[in-house]
Amino acid sequence: MEEKLKELKTNLSLMRTYRHALGIMNFDFETIVPEKAREEEADTINYFSNEYFKLANSDRMKELIVELYKNKENIKDPLDVSLVEKLYESYMKNKNITPEFDLKMSKIFSESYNTWLKAKEAKDYNLFKDIFKKVIDIEEEAINLREDKLDNIYDNLLNDCEKGLIQEDLDPFFLELKEGLIELINKIKSSKHVIRNDFLNRKVPIYKQELFSKYLLELNGYDFSKGVLSTTEHPFTSEISRNDSRVTTHYYEDMVLSNIYSVIHEGGHAIFMQNERDIDHDHFINDYVSNGMHESVSRFYENIVGRSKEYVHLIYPKFIETFDEFRDVSEEELYEAVNIVNPSLIRTEADEVTYGLHIIIRYEMEKLLANHKIGIDEVPNMWNKLYKDYLGVDVPNDALGVLQDVHWTGGFGYFPSYAIGNCYNAMYLKRMEKEIPFKECVKKGDFKTINDWMKNNVFIHANVLSPKEWIKELTGESLSPKAFLEYLNNKYKEIYKF
Amino acid sequence: MEEKLKELKTNLSLMRTYRHALGIMNFDFETIVPEKAREEEADTINYFSNEYFKLANSDRMKELIVELYKNKENIKDPLDVSLVEKLYESYMKNKNITPEFDLKMSKIFSESYNTWLKAKEAKDYNLFKDIFKKVIDIEEEAINLREDKLDNIYDNLLNDCEKGLIQEDLDPFFLELKEGLIELINKIKSSKHVIRNDFLNRKVPIYKQELFSKYLLELNGYDFSKGVLSTTEHPFTSEISRNDSRVTTHYYEDMVLSNIYSVIHEGGHAIFMQNERDIDHDHFINDYVSNGMHESVSRFYENIVGRSKEYVHLIYPKFIETFDEFRDVSEEELYEAVNIVNPSLIRTEADEVTYGLHIIIRYEMEKLLANHKIGIDEVPNMWNKLYKDYLGVDVPNDALGVLQDVHWTGGFGYFPSYAIGNCYNAMYLKRMEKEIPFKECVKKGDFKTINDWMKNNVFIHANVLSPKEWIKELTGESLSPKAFLEYLNNKYKEIYKF
Repeated sequence: MEEKLKELKTNLSLMRTYRHALGIMNFDFETIVPEKAREEEADTINYFSNEYFKLANSDRMKELIVELYKNKENIKDPLDVSLVEKLYESYMKNKNITPEFDLKMSKIFSESYNTWLKAKEAKDYNLFKDIFKKVIDIEEEAINLREDKLDNIYDNLLNDCEKGLIQEDLDPFFLELKEGLIELINKIKSSKHVIRNDFLNRKVPIYKQELFSKYLLELNGYDFSKGVLSTTEHPFTSEISRNDSRVTTHYYEDMVLSNIYSVIHEGGHAIFMQNERDIDHDHFINDYVSNGMHESVSRFYENIVGRSKEYVHLIYPKFIETFDEFRDVSEEELYEAVNIVNPSLIRTEADEVTYGLHIIIRYEMEKLLANHKIGIDEVPNMWNKLYKDYLGVDVPNDALGVLQDVHWTGGFGYFPSYAIGNCYNAMYLKRMEKEIPFKECVKKGDFKTINDWMKNNVFIHANVLSPKEWIKELTGESLSPKAFLEYLNNKYKEIYKF
Repeated sequence: MEEKLKELKTNLSLMRTYRHALGIMNFDFETIVPEKAREEEADTINYFSNEYFKLANSDRMKELIVELYKNKENIKDPLDVSLVEKLYESYMKNKNITPEFDLKMSKIFSESYNTWLKAKEAKDYNLFKDIFKKVIDIEEEAINLREDKLDNIYDNLLNDCEKGLIQEDLDPFFLELKEGLIELINKIKSSKHVIRNDFLNRKVPIYKQELFSKYLLELNGYDFSKGVLSTTEHPFTSEISRNDSRVTTHYYEDMVLSNIYSVIHEGGHAIFMQNERDIDHDHFINDYVSNGMHESVSRFYENIVGRSKEYVHLIYPKFIETFDEFRDVSEEELYEAVNIVNPSLIRTEADEVTYGLHIIIRYEMEKLLANHKIGIDEVPNMWNKLYKDYLGVDVPNDALGVLQDVHWTGGFGYFPSYAIGNCYNAMYLKRMEKEIPFKECVKKGDFKTINDWMKNNVFIHANVLSPKEWIKELTGESLSPKAFLEYLNNKYKEIYKF
């Protein structure tokens, strides 16, 4: 077994080299590749992705994985056992996928991404729908090749993103969340309290926003010697290699708060990455954090930290110094402004309260689309109708509607993670507040204490435990929206004075 | 033969995919990789460089190249013949280099680059000298593996950079150039004319310099849909793929002119790349332009265009508009300031006249170092002495002396190309001025006419002809510093009024 484990790890090390190269290329593709080179760069990325797929799914790798899995009780190191289990799981998913099929799939995804950019630019869903259909179909085709697939197509995608959570779990979860949010939104709507918002769209040059973004990342504990901040169309964070976790953002001259919270959010992902255990890296199990766990961390920094009274107090002096455009805005006004609850069109710009409804809309649509309950032509109408029904807003065009997010260019299943993440973090916040003086730490900028707590509690088992096991281990409870709704109610009661 | 040519091209196409990936990774490495990830990124790049080497030097490739070369009279398309000849040449250089040796060499070069960055930061040549010695040794070792090597080590390196030009040619060339430059510098020194220089180090925020850099590149005909502008330590231009030629620069707050001329220079390289013939790309002979040819173009745009009275006239309004820090500087004062002749420490900041002496110093040192005529410990002293002798300046530290340039981290042979390039471009300028109203075009910003002339005359045969053949074809003459010295004398006589 030792020999086989060694051979396995030699292969994993080579695969890591490929992933490193692909990470750099994908980062380039998402940040700076010039328009007319998009296609040729996508071709090159697809070629190497496919080579990577071949390495990961070679006959020898399959043999090794199956054999090690069958003999896992003879493996001494529990992290090696965990690795073998995870590889076996992935083996079961991919065993019938040929390199040709994999290449076909990558090509569809990159065509889909390129087409989405153009369709969004043209504000026209019709330009996107054919390739969107192909994305949905090939995802289904891939699932149908699995021997242990779940009956419901969408359940497979959910399970891929957040193992163990399927429709059966999420339907009641989202129902409870929806009801709680709508109740809270109604209370806020009937509040008479007026929040000053005249300054929200003041123009701020991008170079100032860049400076402030770097300040925020450093303040929160992001280590620039192990990362960079770049710009992109749709912000993301990427772990390129052990010492290279990169953050991206998108600047708008007239939406300075948009960038600020986007940077704090993405910085949260990066702080997670920068604080993963070396031992997990050494055992090749550093890539098994679920989306929900990751989003719980990014949205923890974005909202629970970033939109708190204490954080606004902390950054206010630098904010005013950097953006003299806002000199007439008081600390209290800024705090209220970053917490205005206002049903709106764009998910990434949404406040903490209405945000969940944006996710629920996507969840409901994904469910129907993945299971062929609605057709590809019905998408914008349904989208617009749900935005009207749940958020009361009219969608003026597809760029501000169904084309706003990049996620569907690569298929379904990711969106629920954001809402799940919000609920995880509200759950572990309760424990954190018992163990460290959280609010005080934020107020004085002591992110060492906060990040250490996160590292020793939240990050520590994330690569090994399944999401269900992890939240249980961390909080003693199972996923539920209760703590999140309680957190929101307490916070917004004070702001909106109801 | 047709079948073999087809097989060869299939392999070349795969090699191009590797080069594309490596281009992206190297660009990342030179522009944004975070400090603590440098080593792991270098390892990944070296791994794929080595894979590329194996593809390019596989037994089958060698067989194909040799066989096609032996039967080249049966190949119909002259571009295919040219391709086979060039591949054969490279085959002869590399045939005895093993993949292990290639990997060892890459590792030394990347260690050398990383060490150079640190040594430059610490201003200490001693930190660099051991790895520098290894660079020199491994280059020599590689040359000694060639069956058709030239006796003089340095001749091989010169020949690699500028085929057909070796010490025998360059010694008299540089002697004539040196004498001409020193004569001219003496005339300038004894001129009484005073050029205003009080504004040269005024501080200008980097975001303004970024804006102006983009303006300049676009003005000169650089196509941003096929490229990007990024920042780096040591500016370079890189052809990532057919539609992706990237320019880099380095901003200094207090040296706005430095960035301007660096951007115009690198933009010149990129304009060359963006205007190469599709047919050359299709025949895989798009990578055979010599360094001297390339530098002739970049330095044409930088100096002959960029430092001309007409160009300063053209950009002056935008210059003043962007940099209000310079509002009190007249067009005439700006023109004179960009042409101040002042012996100085840094090659890349040097004026057109003294620039050649910076190159001659490097040429003289490379010759001695490559052929073991001086030891590695003597380098800074000799450097400092030559700067005192030729330029009359005292070198205060190694960062401003021997460590200023990146080139030696990858070995010798490149520097002469800059001076050769200056002489090529002065030669073809004479012809250009007969065929198009060059100065008028610059004055009105008609770069279409200029770039088209360059495309149809300078760029057109650069991939096929050797430098010697090319300059003969283009101007009817062989390389000589005469036209360049004449150009300088005419220009500076007017500026310095002697």
